[in-house]
Amino acid sequence: MDDRALLSEILDLVDREQAGDDCAVLPCGDRLLVVTTDMVHEATDFPPGMTEWQKGWMAAAVTVSDIAAMGASPVALLIAAGLDRPERLRPLMEGAAACSRRYGAAIVGGDIDRHRELTVVTTGLGTVEPGRIVRRRGSRPGDLVGLTGVPGRAQAALEGYPAFREHLLEPQPRVEEGMALGRAGATAMMDTSDGLALSLHDLQAVNDCGYAITSDLLPLPAGVPEAQARSFALFGGGDYDLLFTIPEARLPVPGVEGRIIGRVVQEPGVLLDGEPLPARGYAHVWEK
Amino acid sequence: MDDRALLSEILDLVDREQAGDDCAVLPCGDRLLVVTTDMVHEATDFPPGMTEWQKGWMAAAVTVSDIAAMGASPVALLIAAGLDRPERLRPLMEGAAACSRRYGAAIVGGDIDRHRELTVVTTGLGTVEPGRIVRRRGSRPGDLVGLTGVPGRAQAALEGYPAFREHLLEPQPRVEEGMALGRAGATAMMDTSDGLALSLHDLQAVNDCGYAITSDLLPLPAGVPEAQARSFALFGGGDYDLLFTIPEARLPVPGVEGRIIGRVVQEPGVLLDGEPLPARGYAHVWEK
Repeated sequence: MDDRALLSEILDLVDREQAGDDCAVLPCGDRLLVVTTDMVHEATDFPPGMTEWQKGWMAAAVTVSDIAAMGASPVALLIAAGLDRPERLRPLMEGAAACSRRYGAAIVGGDIDRHRELTVVTTGLGTVEPGRIVRRRGSRPGDLVGLTGVPGRAQAALEGYPAFREHLLEPQPRVEEGMALGRAGATAMMDTSDGLALSLHDLQAVNDCGYAITSDLLPLPAGVPEAQARSFALFGGGDYDLLFTIPEARLPVPGVEGRIIGRVVQEPGVLLDGEPLPARGYAHVWEK
Repeated sequence: MDDRALLSEILDLVDREQAGDDCAVLPCGDRLLVVTTDMVHEATDFPPGMTEWQKGWMAAAVTVSDIAAMGASPVALLIAAGLDRPERLRPLMEGAAACSRRYGAAIVGGDIDRHRELTVVTTGLGTVEPGRIVRRRGSRPGDLVGLTGVPGRAQAALEGYPAFREHLLEPQPRVEEGMALGRAGATAMMDTSDGLALSLHDLQAVNDCGYAITSDLLPLPAGVPEAQARSFALFGGGDYDLLFTIPEARLPVPGVEGRIIGRVVQEPGVLLDGEPLPARGYAHVWEK
């Protein structure tokens, strides 16, 4: 059983309308509020060799990326830190504060607790105009499938390619790009933190159409043998880029260096070069 | 060093205006949004013998109580759960969902992760009209000091008095009372989860006046020897009642069974029967 299977068991206890997106959406005057929470901890989320500052940056970045994926603008973060040693708090918070500032948000609250293993839960709030929000649901057959950045770089770093180490350890969420895509009329969007293949399947799960992508259009991490690069690009996790769909007439989008990697098709499914693409990627597996 | 000392070291990294209250406050159309996050985990926050359902209820209740302390109405909760065993998720979420429903909020999102020790971080959002919000800062000399409920009951349960066990394990945040106090014009408010004495000192820290309470006015847990009951009431943690200050002319407040336990005085300090009351209560202590 993986995270998705486990979460499906509690869907009756949550607001289903909200549970399918990178953020929940609540009314907030004439704007919409988006809110998301992410838990990271030492054993499974922080690659070896990270500094405390980088751990703080990353804890904030994963949450900021969820806000970016809605086309929203980050406003505030709250940080709950479970600490094995109190002296870790300061550098961790310096990294989180740097990431918050970079994306225009303030740290407005949090909690601390003693913990055997460093655990950081970051909650992020953002706002967006109702006409500019982008959800996972909304793709229409004929839309193009687009992607910011080069997928597979974080996985390449994890597997020993040092050129991508900063990309892995200090992810730069695509906030400006997400907002530009919202303004431009993107029809669906999410971040690629669990990998491109799994993200395409996540879009598929909430849309009544299919996604057909093409190998030749897929950018690959440079300096990695092609077969391995392709595997990283499709199935590697840890990239905080945006996967989106958009009508062709809305391109190009100013401020977004995106690549078109395929097209939304009528028939449900996720295809690579016409063949089914497996739903593999980053997912915790629970022994049970 | 305790939590308060540790947090004081990172005050330059957070929005100070926000850091002093039970919730951060953000504009939200013609209302205010309040938001708070709380981390609880098995080793230090869940008394022995709790069911999984009760752990979920408590994780939600501590956050709902922070919203109540602002005079706000709970709207949404997000739950991040670090699980040692996946089968714990369902009963935990059932408890959290029951508490959310009881107080009018929906669970709109969350995250799960594998963890060596059960860890639950609950983020809560609420809203309140600008004229009805109550912060920790705002007490004025001459105001009365009031308290909902009977302090010390949770500590009594922890120390073996079974009559208070449900009060300890299934805390009932004072949401209706908090809103009524906001409408009635309470000048300052916070919850008493860290104990009455520490909470009075927390109020003192952000107000330019003092708090003088009177033993004879303090309600005590029934069936506990008086000296012990008094110690529980002043220094015990785990009660989720509201401590507030309010002008005498605003009493009584419909819907609030509060007791007046003292008065706000000009001279800074926290006094019990005219003597300084120590700032003892529930606080993690960090060895360093």
